[in-house]
Amino acid sequence: MKTDVQIAREFTSRPITEIADSLHIHDTDLLPYGKDIAKVSLDALSRPRTIKAPSKLILVSAITPTPAGEGKTTTSIGLAQAFTQLNESVCLALREPSLGPCMGVKGGACGGGYSQVMPLDRINLHFTGDFHAITAANNLLAAMVDNHLHFGNKLRLDTRKIMWRRVMDMNDRALRNIVSGLGGTGQGVTREGGFDITAASEIMAILCLSKDMSDLRVRIERILIGYDLDNTPVYAKQMDCVGAMMALLRDAMNPNLVQSFEGTPAFIHGGPFANIAHGCNSVVATKMAMHFAEWTITEAGFGADLGAEKFFDIKCRSTNLDPQAVVLVATIRALKMHGGVAKSDLAGEDIEAVTDGLANLEKHIENVQTLGKPPIVAVNKFATDSDAEIAAVRDKCAELGIEFAVSSHHADGGKGAIHLA
Amino acid sequence: MKTDVQIAREFTSRPITEIADSLHIHDTDLLPYGKDIAKVSLDALSRPRTIKAPSKLILVSAITPTPAGEGKTTTSIGLAQAFTQLNESVCLALREPSLGPCMGVKGGACGGGYSQVMPLDRINLHFTGDFHAITAANNLLAAMVDNHLHFGNKLRLDTRKIMWRRVMDMNDRALRNIVSGLGGTGQGVTREGGFDITAASEIMAILCLSKDMSDLRVRIERILIGYDLDNTPVYAKQMDCVGAMMALLRDAMNPNLVQSFEGTPAFIHGGPFANIAHGCNSVVATKMAMHFAEWTITEAGFGADLGAEKFFDIKCRSTNLDPQAVVLVATIRALKMHGGVAKSDLAGEDIEAVTDGLANLEKHIENVQTLGKPPIVAVNKFATDSDAEIAAVRDKCAELGIEFAVSSHHADGGKGAIHLA
Amino acid sequence: MKTDVQIAREFTSRPITEIADSLHIHDTDLLPYGKDIAKVSLDALSRPRTIKAPSKLILVSAITPTPAGEGKTTTSIGLAQAFTQLNESVCLALREPSLGPCMGVKGGACGGGYSQVMPLDRINLHFTGDFHAITAANNLLAAMVDNHLHFGNKLRLDTRKIMWRRVMDMNDRALRNIVSGLGGTGQGVTREGGFDITAASEIMAILCLSKDMSDLRVRIERILIGYDLDNTPVYAKQMDCVGAMMALLRDAMNPNLVQSFEGTPAFIHGGPFANIAHGCNSVVATKMAMHFAEWTITEAGFGADLGAEKFFDIKCRSTNLDPQAVVLVATIRALKMHGGVAKSDLAGEDIEAVTDGLANLEKHIENVQTLGKPPIVAVNKFATDSDAEIAAVRDKCAELGIEFAVSSHHADGGKGAIHLA
Amino acid sequence: MKTDVQIAREFTSRPITEIADSLHIHDTDLLPYGKDIAKVSLDALSRPRTIKAPSKLILVSAITPTPAGEGKTTTSIGLAQAFTQLNESVCLALREPSLGPCMGVKGGACGGGYSQVMPLDRINLHFTGDFHAITAANNLLAAMVDNHLHFGNKLRLDTRKIMWRRVMDMNDRALRNIVSGLGGTGQGVTREGGFDITAASEIMAILCLSKDMSDLRVRIERILIGYDLDNTPVYAKQMDCVGAMMALLRDAMNPNLVQSFEGTPAFIHGGPFANIAHGCNSVVATKMAMHFAEWTITEAGFGADLGAEKFFDIKCRSTNLDPQAVVLVATIRALKMHGGVAKSDLAGEDIEAVTDGLANLEKHIENVQTLGKPPIVAVNKFATDSDAEIAAVRDKCAELGIEFAVSSHHADGGKGAIHLA
Repeated sequence: MKTDVQIAREFTSRPITEIADSLHIHDTDLLPYGKDIAKVSLDALSRPRTIKAPSKLILVSAITPTPAGEGKTTTSIGLAQAFTQLNESVCLALREPSLGPCMGVKGGACGGGYSQVMPLDRINLHFTGDFHAITAANNLLAAMVDNHLHFGNKLRLDTRKIMWRRVMDMNDRALRNIVSGLGGTGQGVTREGGFDITAASEIMAILCLSKDMSDLRVRIERILIGYDLDNTPVYAKQMDCVGAMMALLRDAMNPNLVQSFEGTPAFIHGGPFANIAHGCNSVVATKMAMHFAEWTITEAGFGADLGAEKFFDIKCRSTNLDPQAVVLVATIRALKMHGGVAKSDLAGEDIEAVTDGLANLEKHIENVQTLGKPPIVAVNKFATDSDAEIAAVRDKCAELGIEFAVSSHHADGGKGAIHLA
Repeated sequence: MKTDVQIAREFTSRPITEIADSLHIHDTDLLPYGKDIAKVSLDALSRPRTIKAPSKLILVSAITPTPAGEGKTTTSIGLAQAFTQLNESVCLALREPSLGPCMGVKGGACGGGYSQVMPLDRINLHFTGDFHAITAANNLLAAMVDNHLHFGNKLRLDTRKIMWRRVMDMNDRALRNIVSGLGGTGQGVTREGGFDITAASEIMAILCLSKDMSDLRVRIERILIGYDLDNTPVYAKQMDCVGAMMALLRDAMNPNLVQSFEGTPAFIHGGPFANIAHGCNSVVATKMAMHFAEWTITEAGFGADLGAEKFFDIKCRSTNLDPQAVVLVATIRALKMHGGVAKSDLAGEDIEAVTDGLANLEKHIENVQTLGKPPIVAVNKFATDSDAEIAAVRDKCAELGIEFAVSSHHADGGKGAIHLA
Repeated sequence: MKTDVQIAREFTSRPITEIADSLHIHDTDLLPYGKDIAKVSLDALSRPRTIKAPSKLILVSAITPTPAGEGKTTTSIGLAQAFTQLNESVCLALREPSLGPCMGVKGGACGGGYSQVMPLDRINLHFTGDFHAITAANNLLAAMVDNHLHFGNKLRLDTRKIMWRRVMDMNDRALRNIVSGLGGTGQGVTREGGFDITAASEIMAILCLSKDMSDLRVRIERILIGYDLDNTPVYAKQMDCVGAMMALLRDAMNPNLVQSFEGTPAFIHGGPFANIAHGCNSVVATKMAMHFAEWTITEAGFGADLGAEKFFDIKCRSTNLDPQAVVLVATIRALKMHGGVAKSDLAGEDIEAVTDGLANLEKHIENVQTLGKPPIVAVNKFATDSDAEIAAVRDKCAELGIEFAVSSHHADGGKGAIHLA
Repeated sequence: MKTDVQIAREFTSRPITEIADSLHIHDTDLLPYGKDIAKVSLDALSRPRTIKAPSKLILVSAITPTPAGEGKTTTSIGLAQAFTQLNESVCLALREPSLGPCMGVKGGACGGGYSQVMPLDRINLHFTGDFHAITAANNLLAAMVDNHLHFGNKLRLDTRKIMWRRVMDMNDRALRNIVSGLGGTGQGVTREGGFDITAASEIMAILCLSKDMSDLRVRIERILIGYDLDNTPVYAKQMDCVGAMMALLRDAMNPNLVQSFEGTPAFIHGGPFANIAHGCNSVVATKMAMHFAEWTITEAGFGADLGAEKFFDIKCRSTNLDPQAVVLVATIRALKMHGGVAKSDLAGEDIEAVTDGLANLEKHIENVQTLGKPPIVAVNKFATDSDAEIAAVRDKCAELGIEFAVSSHHADGGKGAIHLA
């Protein structure tokens, strides 16, 4: 089997201007970053919609994640490519990957196989600098807090109750807990602090939830920095640096437009972690996709219990989004793991384990139904999956009256997901 | 008088593709970042030169800096604009500004008045992400060092003799000296460390001196990280992350093309501090300017004793550059300060103070002559300068047999520097 | 009511040599510290016993402690003074107080009223320097560990897995968690550590359990310092400082002889906390009291569930002690608190609350019976106790078939405890 | 040659009560610590003097110290023993040794050979607990400062300008620079601090200069702790713990009486380092020696330029002491080192080197004369010294008109110093 990087090399890019054209995005709203990436100005949202059909949003979620992988991103991309092959107007809205885990073990978050977004290497590295901008804005606020302490601490901040931490887009264990301000009188005030990864920055979460720049400013102003000696909260707006933070974030607020392996347009923008934040791409990216296309495919982190719930409870509620359906991605391998099989033993057929693992799928179906949306089960097919194993899932879905599709988008690109579409 | 930002708003940008065309840069070598900034691939250096005339390099240096300001960058830009007005083929090669001091007190490093490089705000903020990339590469190496300590410290590094520090593109006093790796067994190994500003990173200095990517790799590999318990040096190549660092620096190695207020092309690339590093823009930017233009105007940090000497001894020597002339920028205000006048009293005419201050200029003329190059004195004119004060400088230059020119490029753009040109 | 300090001032001390004489301790075994304190050499234990009667040991324990206080130490002293008044041969064996809590809120641990050990002020401050010696020995080992790290760390100790902490005989919150070894190459190796209070030092626990100097040496040698990089344990004997530690502890191993307010001899020696260690005075002090007297009264920290159990399970088991009986001290005030009354409302009669609180006493009676020893309930009388309240306790004990006594030793000294005796 | 410890074992102690008797010290003023050490209450100073003859004070100083050693303490003891052998009333006043260097490399400060003070081992270890008491008082103040920070910092202390450090009587490199108060809100306020060795504590210096307890209190109250955020000094008396510090120091203020190898009485009390403090024993010890004896022999740290000068300028001036004479101790070995000989080559005769080294002696003679006192040169004899070498020193002294004596007190005890006496 070819690796993702090998497949990426087969890719022939269309100029990003062409992709933008295909969505009817004005040239004046387009800020190119090289030839195959562009930022789209938020102004584009105020242009009249050119598509007649109403926007339809599909959320891709999954069963409980296992080390075996499920493939939400890959399925999202495959599904969108299938819509393209069916000549539907479609656009992806996905998260941008963190440099940190990417340099570490996890690999990027650009999909895989023939269902990737491109250019893989640039998206996985600095991309358009959004993470760097968020890092800078986050750390400017932190520097201002320490500067305030250094120059007499007029606000009487309790150094032990400063909750605003620094961030770095890097998996740097040694920075999790630090003591800063060492070196005597001229070098700041000594205190405990630390760095989180940028994807965990509150700025990231805020930026992804903001409707526009003024909404972003309001959200930044009310960031809780810490408490003073009387336990009164102290907010970012008291630090006199919100203007500079806004300047740093100006470009980062514009969604990034790229294309999938098969040329489907994709907004890749914002990447808050799903465990500590809400784990979805930016609201403006989703809105922009819906503005320029009939079908928008988006995803939410982790399983349906965590990511999809946060998607509905946080993102949809705060921005009036209303998805048509929820695709629940599963793999035979992951179901086997839920059925008790060790990761090293996943190759052989084991129908009983699949059946046992279906309990997990069933619970997630229930979760999605609780949210009031019809779940569609998508099995993301691997070469090792046996027909009997897949049949076990199909039968279960039939029994529950749930729509079901097998999708081979990893190996076959959009064509493999047409049944799902 | 208008502020720089007000003047910047009067600016009508030409598309960066036009600017590139004017230099005969291939479209395939151009990576746009928005509409008025582009990176030019290093491949461009291997295209045949289209200009017949040999390359001529002019270095702009200055007398000893004072809080009154001298205007090296402004004079460089003004001078280049004058060449443009004279229909000469010319290109600037300048340093890119650090976000840190920019957010602080110092202001950017984009020149001033009608002699600025544009777009001011983007150059002063994230620009094309070069500083962010250098920050990431620097900190990846640091994280790998701590990771090595965490997983058993096979190389027996002495934690007290690790010299590789982290960087941030921010003036963050509290990070100068830190203790990292706190929090017990799972959180890395406790040790003293700290952050420098990105402009002071060895990666910045290396990148600016490297001829190409393979030169950069060699230089990164031999970075001294620290010493082991036997006092044996340990180098970056032992850390197994040079490939990842190279990936992070790939785009950052390409010079950034912008234009001046009057449309003169400018490569703005690399910004190592002059105090702790060599203080000039990248070697590849200077070479690219010389490749595509007849005249290249560049500058060196601080006074001629420090910046120009480093330019000749470090940059020219390691890359076979050979400037035609050295422009020594002075202002009447700065000469008065060297003559003993306080900053608050610089407005009134004081010929005696100017004359006393000329001792500083004279010494710098000597310095430049030691380097074997003809100095040209340029007085960067301010509205408050009296004719008699300027005459005092002119007479001194005449006495010493040194070429002299007054330049009003700040107020008048390129036209004001024509005499200098 | 007189304060303890006022009562202490009424005290007329008998020379400590007389007290020693009364126990038939050889003059050569006596090391005076001022006129009313002496250390008794461990050699004394090898002199033939002069008392014919076998040694009998009584343990004083209590119900669950409340902020209202129960008075184990005071009861122990009162009981011993009662034996003296009855012309019995008796000696106390008690813990010595920590300077730390003493400087803080808790007050000393010398009993109270007319049932104190004297001289109060010296016992509560430096006494004979035992805590200082233990502090020094503990910290010498810590300094040797850091010294080992500083000079190349031959044993490959994992700095994150060093478990040996420093101690100070002081309540010093800011020292609980520190980073030491800061200041660069010449100032040791940076690591996380901290200080405990001396009473919590393992050296304190070890010294109190040791039979003699060679037993102490063996126990010190096998102190676990931490782990090396292969997770192999590293012990104190590998640090080459056990000899010096022994020298520092030589005098501290000898029990301290003082007298109670009424002249009853008391060995006050060793003070490990009951929460983190076993909470009883030294084994050698108990043995010495039993060697020179017929009756020995000793106590164990906290309630019978914790202190008495540790006394039996740790101290008795490791040294073959076998108490005759366990006195369970209660106060009417504490029983009321166990019955649900707030500390501020303890003054008025409240038989119902006392009755409810008896559940606690009953459980402790059970605990003691589990240990195979007959419990004797002693109510430590306060002026505010009503006869009916006391009757409630007496009746309960009668019902359970348990011996019961009221004791007014605080107000009346030994006379008040005669019934208990 | 026998070691000091071997010689110490030959020693037969006289009871300390006899030694006290020989000085006519009242029994009521005597607090024994074991059989051969006693503290003498400061009350003793107010008893009428029993000696008719006026007090005469002799200061023992030395040439510039070398690794070869000079022997100030040994000479002081030898000289005092010589006075005893001549039936003169004499008493020593010396510093007590620090546990720290003693556990380290330096060895104690009890003299050597047959000119030692006894009991060597107890003096070198905890002695009477003075260092422990000073440690506790010093650290109580530090704990109170951190406690103040923890509970809201009413005095607005600038945590970076707290100058009061903790101390430990231990050479513990890793504690020199620490960060304390780690662990979050409940564990104090994070700040930089550190430990000095107890001999360097300001409390040690103050205690040694104080005339009595009330003088000590005044000096403690005005200790400078640090500065507040307005740079206003904050003093110990603002910390509400001076009373407790006084209680901790009560016994430590009383001089310790011991005897030399030949039974000469010696007050050993106080040991501030000569480099950072004034380097002499306590004022009260010197006064007590002078109260009870005709001749008092005392010493000052380092060479005459440092120690003797501090003795005259600080100790004498603040307490009206007026020495009769200054003994300048030299050794042939040290003179040779000053003459350029390496430590390993000191054994052979080298008159030229001795003569060259005399320049050092001559300068110190001058120093002492500047202080207005007659210097007496004492050569502390070693077995390797040749007659010709000694003659060189004798001739130089004769030439300068300075009294000269050779003393063999190390080998011969007091008898060897009779000539000096």
